Amino acid sequence: MGERTEIATLGEFGLIRHLTEKIELKNPSTLKGVGDDAAVLDYGDKLTLVTTDLLLEGIHFDLMYVPLKHLGYKSAVVNFSDIYAMNGRPKQITVSLGISKRFCVEDMEELYAGIRLACDIYGVDLVGGDTSASRTGLTISITCVGEGEKGKVVYRDGARETDLICVSGDLGAAYMGLQLLEREKSVFVETKEDFAPDFSGKEYLLERQLKPEARKDIVEALEREGIVPTAMMDISDGLSSELLHLSKESKVGCRVYEDRIPIDYQTAAMAERFNMNLVTAALNGGEDYELLFTVPLSAHDKVEAMNGVRVIGYVTKPELGNYLVGRDGGEVELRAQGWNSLGE
Amino acid sequence: MGERTEIATLGEFGLIRHLTEKIELKNPSTLKGVGDDAAVLDYGDKLTLVTTDLLLEGIHFDLMYVPLKHLGYKSAVVNFSDIYAMNGRPKQITVSLGISKRFCVEDMEELYAGIRLACDIYGVDLVGGDTSASRTGLTISITCVGEGEKGKVVYRDGARETDLICVSGDLGAAYMGLQLLEREKSVFVETKEDFAPDFSGKEYLLERQLKPEARKDIVEALEREGIVPTAMMDISDGLSSELLHLSKESKVGCRVYEDRIPIDYQTAAMAERFNMNLVTAALNGGEDYELLFTVPLSAHDKVEAMNGVRVIGYVTKPELGNYLVGRDGGEVELRAQGWNSLGE
Repeated sequence: MGERTEIATLGEFGLIRHLTEKIELKNPSTLKGVGDDAAVLDYGDKLTLVTTDLLLEGIHFDLMYVPLKHLGYKSAVVNFSDIYAMNGRPKQITVSLGISKRFCVEDMEELYAGIRLACDIYGVDLVGGDTSASRTGLTISITCVGEGEKGKVVYRDGARETDLICVSGDLGAAYMGLQLLEREKSVFVETKEDFAPDFSGKEYLLERQLKPEARKDIVEALEREGIVPTAMMDISDGLSSELLHLSKESKVGCRVYEDRIPIDYQTAAMAERFNMNLVTAALNGGEDYELLFTVPLSAHDKVEAMNGVRVIGYVTKPELGNYLVGRDGGEVELRAQGWNSLGE
Repeated sequence: MGERTEIATLGEFGLIRHLTEKIELKNPSTLKGVGDDAAVLDYGDKLTLVTTDLLLEGIHFDLMYVPLKHLGYKSAVVNFSDIYAMNGRPKQITVSLGISKRFCVEDMEELYAGIRLACDIYGVDLVGGDTSASRTGLTISITCVGEGEKGKVVYRDGARETDLICVSGDLGAAYMGLQLLEREKSVFVETKEDFAPDFSGKEYLLERQLKPEARKDIVEALEREGIVPTAMMDISDGLSSELLHLSKESKVGCRVYEDRIPIDYQTAAMAERFNMNLVTAALNGGEDYELLFTVPLSAHDKVEAMNGVRVIGYVTKPELGNYLVGRDGGEVELRAQGWNSLGE
C-alpha cells in the first residue's frame, strides 16, 4: 500500500497548487493558465476567458432553504463574476447537471429558469452542457466563456506600490444571510413546528446570500472613466483571503483601514444580535462577489467619485506585510481565514 | 404542490431538449449553441470550440476496476474526442473535482497523472478548474476548449443525399470490455476469493474500455487528403443512436450494411462466449469514441484508401428512413437503443 496523505492537510488551494505545479503550457494560444479568476486564451482579435465552478449539494448549497430558481441564478452569476474580475464580459456558458431520482422535470425547469434569467440579464448565451443521473444529490458544473480586449484584461499580479486598493459594494452581508438561514433551519429542525420565520428587515442579507449579482456595473463604470485597474479579482472567499492572494501574486504588501471597510447596516445589526465580531465577518465572510481592485494613485479622484466603490487602503512594498489598521491605529496582520473555516 | 414528472419519462436527451428549447442566442460570437459535439464561438481569426463532460462515480465509472490514472486519462480524452468530432483541435481544458473523504492526495495525484498524460499526448494545456469536498464519491467535470478553422468546422447537419457514411476504427470493443469487467467483478463479489482474473487475449477489449483514444490521427489524415467531411460526430452512445442524430440533424435517411461494420476479432470472440448478438453490441455498445462522418461520393477512392476508415453505407432521402441492411439483404430499422439501456 502506498502513502495516504489526507486532503485536509493541504486544503483546497494547496491541493490545486500541488496538482498543477508541474504543468507546462504548450500552446501559444494559452496566455494564462491556472491561478487567476479565469484562464486567458488568444483565439484572434479578442481574448477568450474561461472559468468554471462546481457546486455540490450538501457542500455548496442546502435545498432546505435555497429555492432551485435562486440556485440556478447564483450558479450562473458566480461564473460571470469571475469573468468581470478579469475586466472581461461573460458571453457563453455550458451547464452540466448530475441529478438524483429525488428531482423531477419541474425541479430542473425551476433551476433552468434561474440560469436563463441570469443569462438574459447579463446578456449571456447558454451553449451546451451535459446531463446525467447521479447516485445522490444535485451536482451543477458551469463553465463560462467571456471576452476581453487585448491589453485590457486585468490579472492578479499587477498591483504596484502606492496603488490604491478599492472594493465595490459592501462586505459580509452574504455571510450574515447564511448565518440567518442556518439558524432558522436549526430552529425548524429542533422544534418541527410550523416554519414561518420572520425575515422582515433582513431582506438585504437574504438577497445577498440567495441571489447575488456580479458587478457588471462597476466594470462598465471603470471603462467609462477610462480606468484599467492594475490588478483585480472577485471576493468569493472573503476580503482577507483575496487581499493575501493579490499581494502574493503581485509581490507587494498592503495596508487596509478598518473604518474604510464598507458594511451595510443590516449586516452590522445582525452581527450585534448574533454577538459576532463584525469586522471578522466582513473580512472573512465570503460569497460577497464584489470586486477587489487596485488603481494607480493618479486615479484617486475618479474612483472616490464612483458610486459603489470605496478606497480601503493602499499597496506597499512586500516587506511591509499585509495589515489591517484598526480604528485605534493598531495594526493586525491579515490572515487567510476563509469563510469555510468560519462555518460549523 | 405542483406536478411531478419523472426525469426518466424524458430521458437524458429529452430533458436537455426540453430545458434548452426556449433559448434564444444573443451574442454574435455564438455561432452554434446546444446540439452538436461542441459549441462554436467566433472570437477572431479562428473559431473557438467548447465542450464539457460530467463524470460521476457509480454512474459513469466504478473504481473497483477502473484505476484512477486510467480514469483521468479517459476523462480528458472523451472531451478531446468531441473537439475532433467538429474537425477541431483540442487546446485547453479545465478540470473540476468533487472529492469525498475516502480519497487522499496520492489518489488525486494518480488521477491528475492520467489527465496530464492525456494532455501531453494530445498537446493540450490544463488551464484551470475548481476543487471541492463532496459528500459522497468522486465527481469529475472537464471542459475542453479547442480551435477550428473558419469554413472547416464540421457540424452534424451537413450530410447530403448520396454522401458516403464512414466510421473509423472498430466498434463494440469498449462495450465488451465493460461486460468483461462487470462479470469479473460480480464473480469477485460473490466468491470473495482472491481476485486474479485472467484477461489474456482480451487486452484490446480492456484497453478500449479503460484507456480509449480520440481519433486525432483520422482528423489529421482527412486534412492531409484535403477532405472536409460534410457531417461528423463521435460515437459515444453507439453507432445506431449517432446515425439517427446525424440523419435527424441533416434531414436525411441512411442505409448502412451489416457486413461493413468494423468489428475486432476479440469483440466477436467475446460476444460468442457471452452468447450476445455481435451486431447489437457493435451498433449500440457505446464508448467507442470513434468518428462517424460523411463525405461526398467524389471522395470515395480517397476514404477507401485511408487506414482505419471504413465506408459503411450511404445517405438517402429522408423519406427512405434509417435502415441496417443485413447479410441476407433484409432491412432492419435502426433504433436508438443506446448503451445505457443495454446495461443491467
